[in-house]
Amino acid sequence: MSDRVGDSDMQGMFIIDGFLAAGVAAGLKKNGGKDLGLIFSIVPAAAAGVFTCNRVQAAPVILDRKRIATGKGRAIVVNSGNANCCTGEQGLQSALAMAKAVADGLGLSDEQVLVASTGVIGEQLPIQKIKTAVPALLDSLKPEGLSDLAEAIMTTDTVPKLVAVKARLDGKDFRLAAAAKGAGMIRPDMATMLCFVLSDIDLPATVMQTMLKTAVDRSFNRITVDGDMSTNDTVLFLANGLSGVTAETPEARQVVQGVLDDALLQLARLCVKDGEGATKLVEVRVRGAPSDPEARNVADTVANSSLVKTALFGQDANWGRILAAVGRAGVPLDPDRVDIYFDTVLMVKDGVGRGKAVEALATSVLKKPEFAITIDLKMANGNASVLTCDFSIDYVKINADYRS
Amino acid sequence: MSDRVGDSDMQGMFIIDGFLAAGVAAGLKKNGGKDLGLIFSIVPAAAAGVFTCNRVQAAPVILDRKRIATGKGRAIVVNSGNANCCTGEQGLQSALAMAKAVADGLGLSDEQVLVASTGVIGEQLPIQKIKTAVPALLDSLKPEGLSDLAEAIMTTDTVPKLVAVKARLDGKDFRLAAAAKGAGMIRPDMATMLCFVLSDIDLPATVMQTMLKTAVDRSFNRITVDGDMSTNDTVLFLANGLSGVTAETPEARQVVQGVLDDALLQLARLCVKDGEGATKLVEVRVRGAPSDPEARNVADTVANSSLVKTALFGQDANWGRILAAVGRAGVPLDPDRVDIYFDTVLMVKDGVGRGKAVEALATSVLKKPEFAITIDLKMANGNASVLTCDFSIDYVKINADYRS
Repeated sequence: MSDRVGDSDMQGMFIIDGFLAAGVAAGLKKNGGKDLGLIFSIVPAAAAGVFTCNRVQAAPVILDRKRIATGKGRAIVVNSGNANCCTGEQGLQSALAMAKAVADGLGLSDEQVLVASTGVIGEQLPIQKIKTAVPALLDSLKPEGLSDLAEAIMTTDTVPKLVAVKARLDGKDFRLAAAAKGAGMIRPDMATMLCFVLSDIDLPATVMQTMLKTAVDRSFNRITVDGDMSTNDTVLFLANGLSGVTAETPEARQVVQGVLDDALLQLARLCVKDGEGATKLVEVRVRGAPSDPEARNVADTVANSSLVKTALFGQDANWGRILAAVGRAGVPLDPDRVDIYFDTVLMVKDGVGRGKAVEALATSVLKKPEFAITIDLKMANGNASVLTCDFSIDYVKINADYRS
Repeated sequence: MSDRVGDSDMQGMFIIDGFLAAGVAAGLKKNGGKDLGLIFSIVPAAAAGVFTCNRVQAAPVILDRKRIATGKGRAIVVNSGNANCCTGEQGLQSALAMAKAVADGLGLSDEQVLVASTGVIGEQLPIQKIKTAVPALLDSLKPEGLSDLAEAIMTTDTVPKLVAVKARLDGKDFRLAAAAKGAGMIRPDMATMLCFVLSDIDLPATVMQTMLKTAVDRSFNRITVDGDMSTNDTVLFLANGLSGVTAETPEARQVVQGVLDDALLQLARLCVKDGEGATKLVEVRVRGAPSDPEARNVADTVANSSLVKTALFGQDANWGRILAAVGRAGVPLDPDRVDIYFDTVLMVKDGVGRGKAVEALATSVLKKPEFAITIDLKMANGNASVLTCDFSIDYVKINADYRS
C-alpha cells in the first residue's frame, strides 16, 4: 500500500507537489549552523495543529493556536537557537513580526503564516537577525528544501529527522513528507519537539485535525527521554489537495490515518533513538493490566524511572528496578504474578527471578541497541507500549552544560 | 528545650537507657564491611512502624507489618547487601529464620523481633551467613553500639547517619536517638531508606504510631533524589519508658512530636545531602498555590525534574527549566504572574527573567552547597517545601555499575 523512506540522503522523496521549503543560517545558533526554516505552499492549503499541554506556553504556540482555528495555512516559519518562551508581551510581538516578515515577502496575509521556535527559554528572540535573514530564506525556497529545514530545526539532535511516504487510493498516488526535531518529553527545556507534516492529499481541515491528534497520540505521545514536557511542542500538518486524492469513505480515511500514523511513529522512534546521550532504544510493553490506561501508567513509570534507565545504560538486566517501578505506578496488581521478558527471554516468572543462567541470556539482549521489555501483570487485558531510551553520562553532561 | 547532636563521633550521645545495639560483618557485602545490625531493648518496649507504599514489598516489610500490629517489639535485626525482595515464599522463610535466630539468642519469642533488609532486589538472602554471624552479633551488643549499626546498614551511603536529642518534660529528661540510611525515594532499588528510632520515653504504641506517621510526613516524605520509590522503606520506633517521662497532655505530646520531627528531619537532610552523586542540597519552596496539595505537586515536579537537577549540577541558573516544570505540574496557574527566587535573589518576576546582571547574582547562589529555590505562584495561600539534590555524572555511574 505504501513505500517508506527514512533516509535523508534521498532528497527527491521529500518533494511534495506544490510545497517549497528552505533552511538558512541567521546567526541564532552559536555554531553558525542553519537555524531559520520556512515551508511554503504555493496554493491554499488546509491546516491542523497539535500543541504542548504545558501551562507555560511559548509565544509562537499562543499565536499558532489562534491562527490554526481558521483551518488554513500557507507558510510555516521556524527558528532554532531560541524558544521565544517566558518572554512576555515582547515575545508575542516578536512572533508576530517574524510571521509578518515572511508574509510580506511571500505576498500573504499575516494570518496565513504559522510560527515555531525552539531553543533556550527565557531570552528575547533576536528578531532583527531573523528579519535580516528573511530575504535569503525566501531566495532559498525550493521543492527539495525540506532536508534544509530539518537541519535548521536541530538543537541537540545529532541527525536531521525526515520521513516520506507514498500511498495509493482509488488508483491515484498521494504523498506525505514530514520533518521533526527532538521530542515532547525528550528535551523540554530546549523547547523541543517540533514536527511539520506536508501532503498533497485533499482533506477538510476538521478531518485533518482529528487524524493528527490520533496520530500524535499513537507516536509522539508514546515516547519519553526524561519525563519532562516542553513549553514549545508543536506539530503542524498542511495539505494542499494537489494530488486530487480525497478520502471520503471510512475505509479511505483509514488508509490515510495509517500513512500518517506510520510517518509520525517513524519520526518518534528517530527522536528517541537520537535522545540526548541515548545509546539504546527500548520499547516498554505492558500487558495483562486491569485496563489500557492502567497499563499505560505502568509503562510510563518504568520508562521514566531513572534507576531503570541507568541500568539500561549499564546493560544490566536489573529486573528488580523494573519490578520496583511497576509497584509504585499506583495500579492494583499482584506482585507474585508478574512476568518480565527481555525480548523473548522470560527473566521473571510470577514475581521471582529465574536465576543466573537466564540472566546471562537477558544480559545479551541488553547489549543490543534496540529491544523490548515486556511486563505481563496477568490481571486482565489492558495493554500499552511506550518508547524510551537509556540514561547516560552524556545526558548529564549535555544538560549540565547546555547554556554554557 | 532540647539539645541536638548530629556528629557520629560522639557515641555517648547515642546511648539510650535500656537499649543495646551492635553491627558486625557477616559476609553479605562484597567489600567485607559491617552488614548485620541489631537493636535490643532489655525491657519490654512499645513499637510503631511506617512502611513503603510500593505494591511490591520486601519479605521483611510483609513480616514487620504483621508484627508491629501488636504495638510491641524488643529487637530489630537488619542486614545490608541484600533486600530480600521479590524472593517469594523462600524469602519470607528467610526473614522468619533471621528473626528466629536472634530471638533464640536473646531468649525472646519470635514475634518480638522485627526485621529489615537493604540491598539488591531479586536475590535470595544468604540466610546461612546470617545465622553463622548471629553469635558474634549478640556478643557485640553494647549501650554505645548504635553507631556500629548505622555503619552496618550503609549501602551506597558515604557516611553513617545518626542523630540524638535530649529533651525535658515536667522537670525530667528523656532521650531519643535514631540511625538511618538512604532515603525513601533516593535509592529505591538498593531497597533503600531505613530508619530506627529509640527512646526512653513512656508512650502508648497507638500514640507512637500517630506521631511517627506525622514525623515521617514532615521529613522522609518530603525528600527526593530520583523520584523512585523503594520496596523496603521501613521506619521503626521503639520506646521503653525507662526515663519515666510520660506525655499525657496535648502540650506534652506536642513537645515529643517536635523532638521526633526534628530528629527525622535532620536525618532526612543528611540522606539527601548524601544522595547518590549529590553535590547540592536544595530546598524547593512553593507558595501562593491554590492549595497546599497543589503547592506540593508543583514542588515535587520541580524537585524531580531531570532537567532542573542536571542544571543544578551544572550550577546554571536555568530558570526556564524550572518554569517549564512548574507548567507541567497540572496545577492551574498564570505563567505571567510567577516569581522565582534563588535564596533571596528574585530572578524571575511575573514570568519573565530579570536579565544578565540578576542572573550573575543567582549563579553565585547556585555555587553554594545548600540553597533554596522559592516559586511564588501568587494565586492563593497554598504552601509546600521539598528537599532535593542535583543530578550528577556520578549518579549515573553509581547506578549503571551498581550490580557489577
